[in-house]
Amino acid sequence: MRYLSFKRPDGTPTFGRLAGDRVFDLGTPGEASWLRDAIAGGALGALTDGQAYALDSVDLLPVIPNPGKILCIGLNYASHIAEMGRENKGYPAVFTRWADTLVAHGAPLIRPRDGHEFDYEGELAVIIGKGGRHIPQAEALDRIAGYAVFHDASLRDWQRHNSQFTPGKNFPGTGGFGPALVTPDEIDDLGVQRVQTRLNDALMQDQPVSDLIHDVPALIAYCSSFTELRPGDVIATGTPGGVGLGRTPTVFMKAGDRVEVSIGVIGTLTNTVIDEA
Amino acid sequence: MRYLSFKRPDGTPTFGRLAGDRVFDLGTPGEASWLRDAIAGGALGALTDGQAYALDSVDLLPVIPNPGKILCIGLNYASHIAEMGRENKGYPAVFTRWADTLVAHGAPLIRPRDGHEFDYEGELAVIIGKGGRHIPQAEALDRIAGYAVFHDASLRDWQRHNSQFTPGKNFPGTGGFGPALVTPDEIDDLGVQRVQTRLNDALMQDQPVSDLIHDVPALIAYCSSFTELRPGDVIATGTPGGVGLGRTPTVFMKAGDRVEVSIGVIGTLTNTVIDEA
Repeated sequence: MRYLSFKRPDGTPTFGRLAGDRVFDLGTPGEASWLRDAIAGGALGALTDGQAYALDSVDLLPVIPNPGKILCIGLNYASHIAEMGRENKGYPAVFTRWADTLVAHGAPLIRPRDGHEFDYEGELAVIIGKGGRHIPQAEALDRIAGYAVFHDASLRDWQRHNSQFTPGKNFPGTGGFGPALVTPDEIDDLGVQRVQTRLNDALMQDQPVSDLIHDVPALIAYCSSFTELRPGDVIATGTPGGVGLGRTPTVFMKAGDRVEVSIGVIGTLTNTVIDEA
Repeated sequence: MRYLSFKRPDGTPTFGRLAGDRVFDLGTPGEASWLRDAIAGGALGALTDGQAYALDSVDLLPVIPNPGKILCIGLNYASHIAEMGRENKGYPAVFTRWADTLVAHGAPLIRPRDGHEFDYEGELAVIIGKGGRHIPQAEALDRIAGYAVFHDASLRDWQRHNSQFTPGKNFPGTGGFGPALVTPDEIDDLGVQRVQTRLNDALMQDQPVSDLIHDVPALIAYCSSFTELRPGDVIATGTPGGVGLGRTPTVFMKAGDRVEVSIGVIGTLTNTVIDEA
């Protein structure tokens, strides 16, 4: 199944099931309804289709508009570690985003007025279905609600002027997240899905998920060892090599650029860059 | 004025005004009421005293139990930069905590089973009153609801096994925050207040707030340049030198230890360490 978050024509947020080019509203009619809550309820697959909308007629929201936690993993592909001149420390590099950085498929990515080195980072996102602490790797796959595409767009100047990545990763409008949550049963082999980022149609990043240094079960086990994961929490698993900062000359995003991140059967997230007003 | 968050005898969360050894409930009787919302409402000082409780009869909560954002500043005293073997990069080092790490004055600090180097860090916390983006330093002091004492207890092994501090700073039960929000008018001179941390009565940290490299207005301006600050958000301003990791031999906290962080007129936050169950 594929699930989307979107706004109804009256502006209330809801979520639905994607079927071809139609979306069936699964929320409570007339009320704000959240995919996160439905995941927490544990019966997403049993909800009854409501009002149908044409996909191209609705305003999409980020897959989970309001995750409690967004854990981002840095330096999780050897090719990216190398191009950043860093080393593999043997443990995941975890930083965080706040939910107010997220933008939906089709919404603009915002290049801030105070940031100059606006770089793309295509990533696989994991959405937690059943949370907890101290989740063993062997149980981790059972805790996943689904996968989605993430664009961890980064202000390199702000990320690197101190040791901690937080400022460069938390400008509003820099976290693309969409189009849909794809349940694990839709993906025969996660490892062979390729994370591909295209900047104005040029292929900039292209590696299979199997190249992750810390794979999805390892990340869930690690993160749940220091924090409680809850339904709807997001782990962005890290970006492959090929980012703009690692190129000679460097390549940064500017207003008007179109960025597509595709991950095989999981889908394609497209955003266009605008400057902060 | 001094404001506290606490649980009523029936267990509902509320907040109140501290006067001597009594607390006057300022929440809506019978309903969960949050200091953050009252700050956002902009009329905290105009609320009417409700039910009075003896201070020692209520279960305190963290000053703001549910901040939307907790921004922690690392490496903001020269003495601490030196003892950590780091350098002053010229910009604040910002990492984050989630609200589920917070504990109240008097509640236990939890040493996790998987973390071994549990270190103390006494800090001044700033609580945002009126938020925004791009707040100029000259306006920053007007955006402050008040100050409180923060204990940014840290798992050094988890903080340092990769470059990003997130894991070592987000174990549940490691963020002491209390006892009260103290409004700026109660503090004649913030700079002369000394951040003092005592471990089992031994004075381990002792520096004035004026030793901050990036002072409070600079931090508000910097943080609001990359994220929107909102009422009730917290900035923990960093810890002075004297932490346990910087000592020879190192000193780490263990079950039964009592830690007091005092900041002059702002008050004293006391917590006792227990092991994770």
